[in-house]
Amino acid sequence: MSNFKGIQKARDRIVKYIKHTPLHHSTYFSQRSGHDIYLKLENLQNTGAFKIRGAANYILQINSSTGKKGVITASSGNHGKAVAFIASHVGYPAKVVVPTDASLSKVEAVKNYGAKIIYWGKASKERIEKAKKLSKEEKLTFIHSFNHPWIIEGQGTVGLEIIKDLPDVETVLVPVGGGGLISGIALAIKENNPKVKIYGVEPFGGNSMYFSLQAGKPTELKNINTIADGLRSSQPGDLTFALVKKYVDNIILVSDAEIKIALKTLLTKEKLLAEPSGVVTLAAFLAGKVPSKNERVVAVISGGNVDAEIIKRLL
Amino acid sequence: MSNFKGIQKARDRIVKYIKHTPLHHSTYFSQRSGHDIYLKLENLQNTGAFKIRGAANYILQINSSTGKKGVITASSGNHGKAVAFIASHVGYPAKVVVPTDASLSKVEAVKNYGAKIIYWGKASKERIEKAKKLSKEEKLTFIHSFNHPWIIEGQGTVGLEIIKDLPDVETVLVPVGGGGLISGIALAIKENNPKVKIYGVEPFGGNSMYFSLQAGKPTELKNINTIADGLRSSQPGDLTFALVKKYVDNIILVSDAEIKIALKTLLTKEKLLAEPSGVVTLAAFLAGKVPSKNERVVAVISGGNVDAEIIKRLL
Repeated sequence: MSNFKGIQKARDRIVKYIKHTPLHHSTYFSQRSGHDIYLKLENLQNTGAFKIRGAANYILQINSSTGKKGVITASSGNHGKAVAFIASHVGYPAKVVVPTDASLSKVEAVKNYGAKIIYWGKASKERIEKAKKLSKEEKLTFIHSFNHPWIIEGQGTVGLEIIKDLPDVETVLVPVGGGGLISGIALAIKENNPKVKIYGVEPFGGNSMYFSLQAGKPTELKNINTIADGLRSSQPGDLTFALVKKYVDNIILVSDAEIKIALKTLLTKEKLLAEPSGVVTLAAFLAGKVPSKNERVVAVISGGNVDAEIIKRLL
Repeated sequence: MSNFKGIQKARDRIVKYIKHTPLHHSTYFSQRSGHDIYLKLENLQNTGAFKIRGAANYILQINSSTGKKGVITASSGNHGKAVAFIASHVGYPAKVVVPTDASLSKVEAVKNYGAKIIYWGKASKERIEKAKKLSKEEKLTFIHSFNHPWIIEGQGTVGLEIIKDLPDVETVLVPVGGGGLISGIALAIKENNPKVKIYGVEPFGGNSMYFSLQAGKPTELKNINTIADGLRSSQPGDLTFALVKKYVDNIILVSDAEIKIALKTLLTKEKLLAEPSGVVTLAAFLAGKVPSKNERVVAVISGGNVDAEIIKRLL
């Protein structure tokens, strides 16, 4: 199981590969919301997203003879890029299973770090099965994108940085896909100070954590349809579900229209580019869905990898 | 005259109104250039540009009975916005003289801070004369956008932050318009360590500092034509010219095409939005115009105020 000590050890382990990202006070979002809002800028993280924290924490714990046989993951986006990046830095071969309709730009980013691309299926479930099968056949280490203690502890280092930079934080908002990021952050922050409130934010069209919490167990979403491509996970893991159930105060749901406005507002008012998944926390503020007032709030901006075409359409 | 002590005092004076902006290590620009490149993110500064530093340092030194009569400046952009912002915070009335063809979005930003807009002429020279005339008639304090010791010392606080965050910096690149920013930064950094190299960067179509240095004195450019609207100053001031002559190692010139590529690259690779004037330093790197290799270099990104339409056209 993940724990606070594990997050502290993760921080020391991955320090060479990651940035301690800025916590940027946003005048604009503070004025709009009536809160005092700080943005945790993981869009400025190496590889453009928080995923490198978990990937580094996992890969650096594989013993080197195993690692040299190779690592494999299933991801169409930021996790695949992160695994490829870290594997290339430590000299392990990497394979990434991507959907047959993967966007060229994301595939290119993974290829640029020297990983091998395997096109397979469209649903994340099919790809995970394929990656696990190959991992057995070829003795590669399979690296899940969220449901593993080392991944969760790696992502939790975001929480340690928030506590360090804003010790009197009162509320933290975190985007939720499979739940790795919010599990790690909630664990780090609540074990330090249980009074801090943690809210997850999901898109209406990809609300698997909300749906699972209602059902009382990890439950598969049949239909997923959201612009937030990093949050299209169809089901939380057992580990991330348990941590969210234990530590997270509430899940807020936002629409694609709200996400688009948040992305444009962040860009024009705060001069920061984020991907749709990265701004669901800001969408929650702009839509007036964050309870209470006048609190010191951190909104995690989880990543910034978005195609120029999408930005162009939103402006 | 401006001096190092004055910059230190400016820092203490303006601390409530400004951000100590992040110094962001850029993996992408480092790999592209062969240098180790840090971006000084004044695009994330309050009001979206460094100008607030000088404006605050000036306005906070006016005695309050004089201040209450009002302040006036001539600016079509970031300096006007900064003066309006600080004046509104300390409760002084403000007037800003803008060109008759000023962009609506920039005028709106100034108005939003409660300043009164006066449309006058097209050239900066005409506007400055008009503002000075009104300042005499209406007993308003005229605040020049660059050629004053308090303005220069205010902008110099950028230099103090660079020294603090990267004590072993070897080279600093700074955009040059009227020369207020580079004068302050060069003074702060060279008086601390004369070995650090300071390069100014100007657009070919607005190279008044380069032209004046060649001529040996502040000299007026007759034709100005560049996308970098914050660097369209037709002539350096006597104070800024003297400081640049004394402290700056060289001026690098870049084209509008190079500026456009730099803006797009910063946005897509580093997830940061800057205005054309703000990225001339990056244009110099991408064009291979920065001498030597393997140095710790700071590129100042001076501001981020750019219309959505311009971003759209560049993507």
